[in-house]
Amino acid sequence: MKVTVWNEFRHEKESEKVRSVYPEGIHQHIASFIEDAEVTTATLDEAEHGLTEEVLNTTDVLIWWGHKAHDEVDNAIVDRVHKRVLEGMGLIVLHSGHFSKVFKKLMGTGCDLKWREVGEKERIWTVMPNHPIAEGLDEHFELEQEEMYGEHFDIPAPDELIFISWFQGGEVFRSGATFKRGNGKIFYFRPGHETYPTYYDKNIQRVINNAVRWAKPTTNGYPTYGNYQPLEDLSKGEKTDDL
Amino acid sequence: MKVTVWNEFRHEKESEKVRSVYPEGIHQHIASFIEDAEVTTATLDEAEHGLTEEVLNTTDVLIWWGHKAHDEVDNAIVDRVHKRVLEGMGLIVLHSGHFSKVFKKLMGTGCDLKWREVGEKERIWTVMPNHPIAEGLDEHFELEQEEMYGEHFDIPAPDELIFISWFQGGEVFRSGATFKRGNGKIFYFRPGHETYPTYYDKNIQRVINNAVRWAKPTTNGYPTYGNYQPLEDLSKGEKTDDL
Amino acid sequence: MKVTVWNEFRHEKESEKVRSVYPEGIHQHIASFIEDAEVTTATLDEAEHGLTEEVLNTTDVLIWWGHKAHDEVDNAIVDRVHKRVLEGMGLIVLHSGHFSKVFKKLMGTGCDLKWREVGEKERIWTVMPNHPIAEGLDEHFELEQEEMYGEHFDIPAPDELIFISWFQGGEVFRSGATFKRGNGKIFYFRPGHETYPTYYDKNIQRVINNAVRWAKPTTNGYPTYGNYQPLEDLSKGEKTDDL
Amino acid sequence: MKVTVWNEFRHEKESEKVRSVYPEGIHQHIASFIEDAEVTTATLDEAEHGLTEEVLNTTDVLIWWGHKAHDEVDNAIVDRVHKRVLEGMGLIVLHSGHFSKVFKKLMGTGCDLKWREVGEKERIWTVMPNHPIAEGLDEHFELEQEEMYGEHFDIPAPDELIFISWFQGGEVFRSGATFKRGNGKIFYFRPGHETYPTYYDKNIQRVINNAVRWAKPTTNGYPTYGNYQPLEDLSKGEKTDDL
Repeated sequence: MKVTVWNEFRHEKESEKVRSVYPEGIHQHIASFIEDAEVTTATLDEAEHGLTEEVLNTTDVLIWWGHKAHDEVDNAIVDRVHKRVLEGMGLIVLHSGHFSKVFKKLMGTGCDLKWREVGEKERIWTVMPNHPIAEGLDEHFELEQEEMYGEHFDIPAPDELIFISWFQGGEVFRSGATFKRGNGKIFYFRPGHETYPTYYDKNIQRVINNAVRWAKPTTNGYPTYGNYQPLEDLSKGEKTDDL
Repeated sequence: MKVTVWNEFRHEKESEKVRSVYPEGIHQHIASFIEDAEVTTATLDEAEHGLTEEVLNTTDVLIWWGHKAHDEVDNAIVDRVHKRVLEGMGLIVLHSGHFSKVFKKLMGTGCDLKWREVGEKERIWTVMPNHPIAEGLDEHFELEQEEMYGEHFDIPAPDELIFISWFQGGEVFRSGATFKRGNGKIFYFRPGHETYPTYYDKNIQRVINNAVRWAKPTTNGYPTYGNYQPLEDLSKGEKTDDL
Repeated sequence: MKVTVWNEFRHEKESEKVRSVYPEGIHQHIASFIEDAEVTTATLDEAEHGLTEEVLNTTDVLIWWGHKAHDEVDNAIVDRVHKRVLEGMGLIVLHSGHFSKVFKKLMGTGCDLKWREVGEKERIWTVMPNHPIAEGLDEHFELEQEEMYGEHFDIPAPDELIFISWFQGGEVFRSGATFKRGNGKIFYFRPGHETYPTYYDKNIQRVINNAVRWAKPTTNGYPTYGNYQPLEDLSKGEKTDDL
Repeated sequence: MKVTVWNEFRHEKESEKVRSVYPEGIHQHIASFIEDAEVTTATLDEAEHGLTEEVLNTTDVLIWWGHKAHDEVDNAIVDRVHKRVLEGMGLIVLHSGHFSKVFKKLMGTGCDLKWREVGEKERIWTVMPNHPIAEGLDEHFELEQEEMYGEHFDIPAPDELIFISWFQGGEVFRSGATFKRGNGKIFYFRPGHETYPTYYDKNIQRVINNAVRWAKPTTNGYPTYGNYQPLEDLSKGEKTDDL
């Protein structure tokens, strides 16, 4: 299994605070805890954002973290990632990646939400305990400080809703949701603001590892499309006498 | 449209506190605000719990409130209600009705949940704003005091999740959910503890009225089952030469 | 209720055969059977394709038929329609409209499928009889001659799957499917090849009329997004002692 | 992984024709092709139908084939299987098992359908190619002779619809469908009439093996229910001043 962790990698360069949490960048930290996979990273400022045809064609699951520079992601690369997801590559979209071009293109909706950054408590409840992405978790777990994301979250109704967040300030949010698109599987996972040590949390790491396993491509006869001859002999069919 | 409001009608007889909120019984109060329908009521202690064949056969939408006497509901009446829902009668299950025999029979699961009765605040968020059951509501509304119901709620994944509740004590709950079963439509709506004036709330009344309209039976060729002759002439089919 | 029927309106101009079926254009024919609504039409070759801001802003439900000129639909108009659907306008996409820019943008997938044009029989089965879009139909109905569309149909799993087609040549197809996106409701309905009199069929007309009623906008507090103050007093919350 | 294959095991004893296809019983044949698991079998005429507490408590996935003797399955054993599914045991229900007591209890609906036994052709189409249960399959595969099952199939809308069958005689059927209930995963798979060699088909065997892997229990903090203390300090909450 090959996993590529993509990060915008700008906050870490510009903010001392973020750098103090993720000195090597969020991507390097996420890459460090992915299990049972060959993990590489890619970032916005690399050529082709590090997402060349070759990299994507050999990636089984792509993890995406972006926030302040969504607009700088080249449309051609967005189309390339979109195409690869439809072909079967798994995609895990984290936190502010809800507003990335590729997630919006896959969802077909605005993907907007409410937000607040005061470091309040988030409590994440599992509402689909039998899902493999919830494997090994307790019924709920807490993050002492996170950015708030609140409903309405402008996404299609998820295929599966696994987690719902409670926020101290009074909001709720559909925090863990799966979507199947084309031949690929997508998981959106809410937590992960850059100024908090969210990706050091063992529960968060477990969810992401579970999601990587869940999102791996299915080996199948990739669907074909176009003009097809009948599988049945129409000339012998019931209607022949009438024609 | 004919609506029947069913109520266990025991709390009101036994508790001064409940009676002070609903002097005529919860059923009479609910019946009083249902719009554009011919509304009747039925209660546990009537013959056949007030749900005779005749009553059910002419009911388009049944509203169900029960709590402390679920076990006293006769299994034959449960089967009768269940059958009518599969035939097309709408069913709106309120609050503690989650544990009624008929809801459990329709869901196929335990329908259990967490609960707490300290009169904390509930804030109900709309997560599917385009659903007709959410018509006319703001993005969220509050009940100053309610019983808490918390996840995990042991139901099948709803066909549609319309509302999620935030509770002051730290829990979330899937508070408004639809389920299609057989030819019928079911809506579960969480609020409505007997000691609080929840059913006097204008938003609550609007949701219940919206749900009644949504749940009305679809007039259709009721599905038929059993042994059927082929619709195509198999003797002329492609395989004839081979047989 | 205001309904706008949009048609590419090219086949009818270029093909005697199509013109013999729909002399006034598919749009005029569809407009002629829509009930209980103020109906107007719009076509590709009008200014702004007939879909000005004013037209769209006053349209409750838009019906879309296109086939050979999807690429000629201006991207700005596609974005305008897309935005209006997310705001709440209903959208009914017919037949080859599966490949329209706006449907693909709303779905986020390729929307491709298999097809064959030999005039074989299609039998449409209702698999969700309790849905209002199936109101008044028998369990199945037939179209003696239609173009075949076959799986895999590259769409997200529908929110609701109402119809499945059987084709004489051996394929099946998810023929009637709903999708909620943003504040809007979408119904895709497969039949309607331009060379067959499909839109004269009473069952087809009934489905489209049912769908128009189902897709009408919900009047609600349109979701808002952005930076929000807490609804609860965080300074008084449990965590105050720790901060 | 422990798999138990349950079979009614009556047809094989009573019919020469069935015995010629499955000389050791359908259960032994299914058990013979399950991969990567410790497989045992159980049958109706064993004590407790072979489904003792001990057997069920150590079963990860139960496969169920029954047809003519559904009524002879003891209700206490049905309840035991139902409880184990809600606790997390996977359940794969085959063919005529759609009418088993345990499947009907889990679905909450009638589970009825149309049927015909003339040995016509079934063609099974994959409509969710990215699902692990479809792993390794082509876009469609055929069974030269099978019993027909036709819509309407009276089940809840599946959580995931993976396969749709085309029948020579003109019907369609939702042939492969998943349902999550409680902590358990359920897969219904249509083919497998006792007089045809369906379970010798390599595609059928692959689907069942895929389903076993998919249905294995998730290890989690099994949900708890009942009366709970608040997770937040309500006395310090915003509303304290008002109380």
